Amino acid sequence: MKLTASSPIGIFDSGIGGLTVVKSVMKSLPGEDIIYFGDTARVPYGIKSSETVKEYSLQITDFLLKKKVKAILIACNTVAASCKNEIVAKAGNVPVLDVVTAGSKAAAAIVKKENLIGVIGTLATVGSAAYENAIKKIDPSVSVYSKACPMLVPLAEEGWIDNEIAVKTIELYLNDFRQKPLDALILGCTHYPLFKDSISSFFNNPDMKIIDSADSIAEMTKELLSSKNLLNKSEKGLFNCYVSDKPQRFQALAERFLGQSINRVEVVNMR
Amino acid sequence: MKLTASSPIGIFDSGIGGLTVVKSVMKSLPGEDIIYFGDTARVPYGIKSSETVKEYSLQITDFLLKKKVKAILIACNTVAASCKNEIVAKAGNVPVLDVVTAGSKAAAAIVKKENLIGVIGTLATVGSAAYENAIKKIDPSVSVYSKACPMLVPLAEEGWIDNEIAVKTIELYLNDFRQKPLDALILGCTHYPLFKDSISSFFNNPDMKIIDSADSIAEMTKELLSSKNLLNKSEKGLFNCYVSDKPQRFQALAERFLGQSINRVEVVNMR
Repeated sequence: MKLTASSPIGIFDSGIGGLTVVKSVMKSLPGEDIIYFGDTARVPYGIKSSETVKEYSLQITDFLLKKKVKAILIACNTVAASCKNEIVAKAGNVPVLDVVTAGSKAAAAIVKKENLIGVIGTLATVGSAAYENAIKKIDPSVSVYSKACPMLVPLAEEGWIDNEIAVKTIELYLNDFRQKPLDALILGCTHYPLFKDSISSFFNNPDMKIIDSADSIAEMTKELLSSKNLLNKSEKGLFNCYVSDKPQRFQALAERFLGQSINRVEVVNMR
Repeated sequence: MKLTASSPIGIFDSGIGGLTVVKSVMKSLPGEDIIYFGDTARVPYGIKSSETVKEYSLQITDFLLKKKVKAILIACNTVAASCKNEIVAKAGNVPVLDVVTAGSKAAAAIVKKENLIGVIGTLATVGSAAYENAIKKIDPSVSVYSKACPMLVPLAEEGWIDNEIAVKTIELYLNDFRQKPLDALILGCTHYPLFKDSISSFFNNPDMKIIDSADSIAEMTKELLSSKNLLNKSEKGLFNCYVSDKPQRFQALAERFLGQSINRVEVVNMR
């Protein structure tokens, strides 16, 4: 496929959480057109078998390739951990980036004295050791301490990001992290950027950097497109949002993750 | 279809929450064989469109009918609210019971001085006003006050049913219920029976009865089978568990909802 600067960037996730990646990309690359696909009919992927996740992800890759995207961003940690290689193979010359690699690179680049990185994510992401593997590939001397924090996703969706319950939940999950001399903590789930302030207050540690994978993948995309002369120089890009089903509270949730309202959403039947 | 006393009872839900219904049926009807289907590959139904929920539910109804069940119990509130009539039509002479009707009947039967029933459930259940409609059909003079408590499902799945976070969450959701003179509170979600003790302590009100829809449907099933001479008199029934995908932490979760471990689970591909 011929890649052109005016082509859109394709971003996908199992649901609407990946809109945090869209938000970061819009901020870093305001001139780019973006096509987002959220598989809201089949969310969550994290509890599904890897065969099922692969099948769904390749369907979405097909969808994005038909839209002639110039890059595919995997915003879903579960997909990145399960089947990135298969997506790369299907995408041909269209470059594929993913949140796990992006977050791992950003964290590995800043480890210093303690050589210890913390990772939080869903059960599936932490169970897959995807971040650990990616970090060790970059620098085998780095140690990784990771933990699943399943309650943070529903808390984000309920909008409870800094109330007493959110604070107590963060405390319960992250207490043992506070005892460790972490150089960085990776927010390894698309929903977690919403808790960045609450987590930062909890640690209150200027020596530990919080890595938001959404910001990391946006930066990586900027570097990649720039190196390939594929940056879109227009003033303001277009955003097209596709979902496989229109979930309850969609607008409120989308606004929470994207930081702005979505005017038009198209429902695509993936079955 | 010829219904016989030795035939199994079919119970289904979008996921594993319906195992609370299995638990209640096992307790009320220990001699019955039970076939459970949990659509774990496609859970949750609550965020999906009603067309999608109907399509999935009819597939499962087909599956249970092929197993020659003598009754179908809809353990999923979303399914009961969306497409019970279609399931009844497909089931022919096999009787269909559902948690919404069962819980509503049990609550309507005990309202007394205040004529006010509270209902808690998922966003989908509360949004559908299913309990309210069912109660008004039984007794139009009864008032219903309902509220969605979305965080209770993930709390149950995390096993946080009586810790500080569970207590605070119950308080935040149910505080305004405590100001109302309720005769009964319906736990309108398969996961909520796990919080029965915590909710009961929170209200600390002997005049308000907590209605567990799982217990209610088990009692209704007993009455129905008895009236049709279809009770299985064997000493201990068999339990067969089918799921559409084997989720993470399945055994731990199943044990939490069923109150016992599950020896054998069969995965059925529904796509």
